[in-house]
Amino acid sequence: MTTSLSELKVRSKRIADISAALGLLEWDQETCMPPAASAARGDQRGALAEIAHEMLVAPETLRLLEGAERETASLPEDSNDRRLTAVARRDYDHAVKVPAELVAEISRASSITHEVWARAREASDFELFAPHLETMFGLARRMADCLGYSGHVYDALLDLYEPGATHAAIRTLFTELRPRLVELTHAISARPPVDDSPLHGSFPVDAQRALTLSVVAALGFDLARGRQDEAAHPFCAGFSHNDVRITTRFSTAYLGQALWSSMHEAGHGMYDQGWPADWEGTPLGGGASLGIHESQSRLWENVVGRSRPFCRWLLPKLKQAFPDRFNATGAEALYRAANRVVPSFIRVEADEVTYNLHILLRFELESELLAGTLAIKDLPDAWNDRMEQYFGIHPRSAAEGVLQDVHWSEGLIGYFPTYTLGNIVSGQLWDALTRDIPAVDAHIENGNFAPILAWQNSHVHQYGRKYLPGELVQLATGKPLSSEPYVAYLVGKYSELYDLPR
Amino acid sequence: MTTSLSELKVRSKRIADISAALGLLEWDQETCMPPAASAARGDQRGALAEIAHEMLVAPETLRLLEGAERETASLPEDSNDRRLTAVARRDYDHAVKVPAELVAEISRASSITHEVWARAREASDFELFAPHLETMFGLARRMADCLGYSGHVYDALLDLYEPGATHAAIRTLFTELRPRLVELTHAISARPPVDDSPLHGSFPVDAQRALTLSVVAALGFDLARGRQDEAAHPFCAGFSHNDVRITTRFSTAYLGQALWSSMHEAGHGMYDQGWPADWEGTPLGGGASLGIHESQSRLWENVVGRSRPFCRWLLPKLKQAFPDRFNATGAEALYRAANRVVPSFIRVEADEVTYNLHILLRFELESELLAGTLAIKDLPDAWNDRMEQYFGIHPRSAAEGVLQDVHWSEGLIGYFPTYTLGNIVSGQLWDALTRDIPAVDAHIENGNFAPILAWQNSHVHQYGRKYLPGELVQLATGKPLSSEPYVAYLVGKYSELYDLPR
Repeated sequence: MTTSLSELKVRSKRIADISAALGLLEWDQETCMPPAASAARGDQRGALAEIAHEMLVAPETLRLLEGAERETASLPEDSNDRRLTAVARRDYDHAVKVPAELVAEISRASSITHEVWARAREASDFELFAPHLETMFGLARRMADCLGYSGHVYDALLDLYEPGATHAAIRTLFTELRPRLVELTHAISARPPVDDSPLHGSFPVDAQRALTLSVVAALGFDLARGRQDEAAHPFCAGFSHNDVRITTRFSTAYLGQALWSSMHEAGHGMYDQGWPADWEGTPLGGGASLGIHESQSRLWENVVGRSRPFCRWLLPKLKQAFPDRFNATGAEALYRAANRVVPSFIRVEADEVTYNLHILLRFELESELLAGTLAIKDLPDAWNDRMEQYFGIHPRSAAEGVLQDVHWSEGLIGYFPTYTLGNIVSGQLWDALTRDIPAVDAHIENGNFAPILAWQNSHVHQYGRKYLPGELVQLATGKPLSSEPYVAYLVGKYSELYDLPR
Repeated sequence: MTTSLSELKVRSKRIADISAALGLLEWDQETCMPPAASAARGDQRGALAEIAHEMLVAPETLRLLEGAERETASLPEDSNDRRLTAVARRDYDHAVKVPAELVAEISRASSITHEVWARAREASDFELFAPHLETMFGLARRMADCLGYSGHVYDALLDLYEPGATHAAIRTLFTELRPRLVELTHAISARPPVDDSPLHGSFPVDAQRALTLSVVAALGFDLARGRQDEAAHPFCAGFSHNDVRITTRFSTAYLGQALWSSMHEAGHGMYDQGWPADWEGTPLGGGASLGIHESQSRLWENVVGRSRPFCRWLLPKLKQAFPDRFNATGAEALYRAANRVVPSFIRVEADEVTYNLHILLRFELESELLAGTLAIKDLPDAWNDRMEQYFGIHPRSAAEGVLQDVHWSEGLIGYFPTYTLGNIVSGQLWDALTRDIPAVDAHIENGNFAPILAWQNSHVHQYGRKYLPGELVQLATGKPLSSEPYVAYLVGKYSELYDLPR
C-alpha cells in the first residue's frame, strides 16, 4: 500500500540523488576542475541547488510530510519511521522559512564578499573588508529572523549546523572551558618548548601519498568504497554509502600536514561509510550534526593519532616510507613532536590545546556582532585584545588576525562552535570508549584499530541523523554533554608531556 | 523585452546545466568512482536524466518554441536565432516523440543486456546473448516507430546520431567505398608486412603520460581549459567551454595505444573547446553530429598523427621520453610502424584501412536485423561470412566475432556508421585544407599545428550545431559529401607504403 510516508521516502531519495550530484560538482571543483571553468560550474551548481530546494519546499512535500506525521503519530517515539518523519520536518522547516530571494541574495553577496576578503587578506586591509562583512552579518540577521528564535538571535543560525544547540548552552560549556584552556596554555608556554624537528625536513610527495593511504586504510577507511585526492583545503565528501572521498594536502617540508589531515578526514569518512546502508537517500542518512561529525575526525586525528601508542605503531612505517629519515628518532620523540603546543596566530595551524581558544574567541565575537553589542569597526581591536588575553600574543596584522578565516565572508556565521563541540564530544566519547575497551592502547600500538571503529559504529555511526546531537551523546556515553572528560584528557596528557605541576 | 526566444534560451541553459552535471556523473564513473558505487550512481544519473528530459518535453518548452518560431520566421534563413530555434525544435521533437515509459524500458533492458553481453563475451556464448539482443532490436524498432520515418526504419535511429542522414545515402556511400577498401586490403595482405616493432616493448606509464600531454598540448588542446585522465575506454567529455576532458589508456607494452588514442580524443576535445563561447548553454552549442565529431578526432589521430611529417616531428620527442629506446629507429621506420595494415578480428584494434570494413559489416547487419530480413539466430553466420568476404579471415569464436562490441547491448543501433562517416569527412576536410594550406606538411614537421587548428576552427568548429552535417561539409569544403577524397587519401598513402601497383 502506498502511504504518504513511502511517497515521502521516494521524494527524499530523489532530492538526495540531486544533492549527491551537486556534491560531486563541488568535489570536482576542488580536486579536478580547470579553474577557468568556475563561472560555468557556478551556474551548474546553482541549477541543481535550486532544483533540490524547489522539490524540498514544494507543497507536495508538505502534503506528504503531514500525511507521514499522521501515519507515524502512534508509533513508538523512538521508531525509525517516526524519527525519519521528524528529521524530514526539520529539514523542510529550515528550507521553507527562508525565502528563495534571501538565499539568492546571500549567495550573490557571499561570492562578492569572498572575493573582497581574499584581496583584503592579501593586503591585510580590514577597512576594505568591513562594509562587506557588515552586509554579511546583516543578511545573517535577516536569515535568523526568517528562521525564528526564542532566545539569542544566534540560536537560529546555530540550529542549522548543530540541531538543538543553543547559544546559552554553548556559552555555558565554553565559559567552563575557557579558564582551563587559558591556564593550561599559559602553563605550557612557561615550559621549554618540545622539539618537533622530526616532522620537518624534506618528504617526497609520492612517499607521503602511499603512507597516508596505508594509514587511513589501517584505521578502517574503506578504500574500496572511497578514495583520497588532493585539495588546497582538505575536506570529506560522500556521494553514496559506497563512495566517500577524502582529500589531503601535501607539504614537502612538513610531514604533519598530510598525515594528520588525512586521519582527520578519514574520521569524517568512516562516519559517512558507517551509517546504515538502507538509510541512504532517506532523511536519516548522514551525520547527526557538524559537531558530531567533527568529534569523529578529531578523535582519529588527535586522541588516537597524536597518542603515544599510535606513535609507537607509526614510527616503523615512517622509517620504511622515508629511508634514513627517522633513524635517530625514537617513538617518544615522535610523540613529543606530534604534540607541540605553542600559542600562534592562525587557527588552522594551531595545536590541540590552543585550537579551542581560537574558536572561543570567534564564538564570542560573532555572538556580539550578531546581537549588535559589538560594531564591525571595533572588531579588529576586540580580536586583538582577546588574543592577548587568551594566548598572550598580539597579531601584527589583520591578515594574521581578524582576516584569517574564510567563514564569515561566506556567510557561515554560527558555524565556528561546532569545531570545539567536536573536540569536547571526542573527549567524552573517548572516555566512554576506554571504559568499554580498557586495552585500547595496546590495540592501537598493534595497529588494531578495528575495536575503536566498531565502537564508533555501534555507539555513533549506526544512528545516522536519527537523534539530535545532545540525545546521541547521552545514548553513546550514558551522560549528558560535558566538557569535563575533554578537559581531563587535555590536562592529563599535556601535564605529563610538559611536566606541569598538577 | 522578454521574448519567447529569450525565455527559450534561459530554459535551454538550465537544461544544459543539468546535462553538464549528468556528464560529470558519467565522466567520474569512468575515471574516479569506486566501482562499488555503481548502483547509487545509476540512480543519480537516472534522476538528472529524468529532470532534464521532463524540462525538455514540458508544455512550456513547446509554448516557447512556437513563440520563438513566430518571432524568428521573418529573419534570414541563415541567422543564428532562426537556426537556434530550428535546432531546439529538432531536439524537442526527438525527445517528445519517445514516451518516457519506452525510454525507461530501454534503459532497464540495456542494463540487463549489457551485463549478459559481458558474460556471453567472456564465455563466447552467443546463445546466451541472443534473446536479449532480440529484445534490444525489438525496442529499437519501437523507438523508430515512435520517432517516425518515411524511408528505411533505420532512418529514424540514424537521425538521432547523424541529423539529416538516411539509410539510402549511407548505403550509397558505403557501397562505393566497400570494393575500394576490400581491394586495397587484399592488395596489402599480399605484400610483406611492415615492421611495427618500434612501438612494442616496455614504455613506463609516467613517461607516456608526460609525452601524450605534451603532444596534445602541441596540437592545440588547451590544458588550461581541460585535462587528460585515464579510462578503460577512452572518451572525451565537455562540461563547459572551459572544461573539456579527454581520457586515454596506457599499455606499457604498446606505445601506440595511448599515443593515438590521446590524439584522437584531443581531436574531439579541440572541437568542444572551439565552438563559440557565447553559444554555451544554447541549442547551438556542441558538435554538429557524431560523424562530424569523429571527423575531427580521426583527422588528428590518423591524417595528421600517422603522417610522415608528424613522425619526423615526433621521433626526437620519443627519444627524449624513452632514452635509448629509439636510438636505432629512423623517422621512416616510425612512419611505417604507425601504419601497419593487417586484417584482424577486433574493430577497436583495427588499422586505418580495415577499420572501415568493420563498420560496413556492422551497418549492413544491423540494417537487415532492424528490417527483419536477417534473423538474430542467423547473425553469427552472417557475421563470419562477411568477415571472410571482406577481410579474408574467419573468427574462431563469437567473442572475436559478433560478441565483440558493446554498442548493440546498450541499444546503440544506427550508431556504427558515424565512425566511417567521420573518416570519410576527415578525408574531404583534409583535401580542402591542403588546398588552402599547401605547406601543411612543413608545418607539421615543424610542430606548427596552429594553422591546422585555425582552419578547423574557421571551417568547422565555429558553426557548432548551427548546420546539419551535410550542410556543414558543403560549407567547409565547397562540395557535397563524397568518399572520393578519403579513398584517394588511403589509396595514395598505402600504395606508396606497401609499394602497390597503381
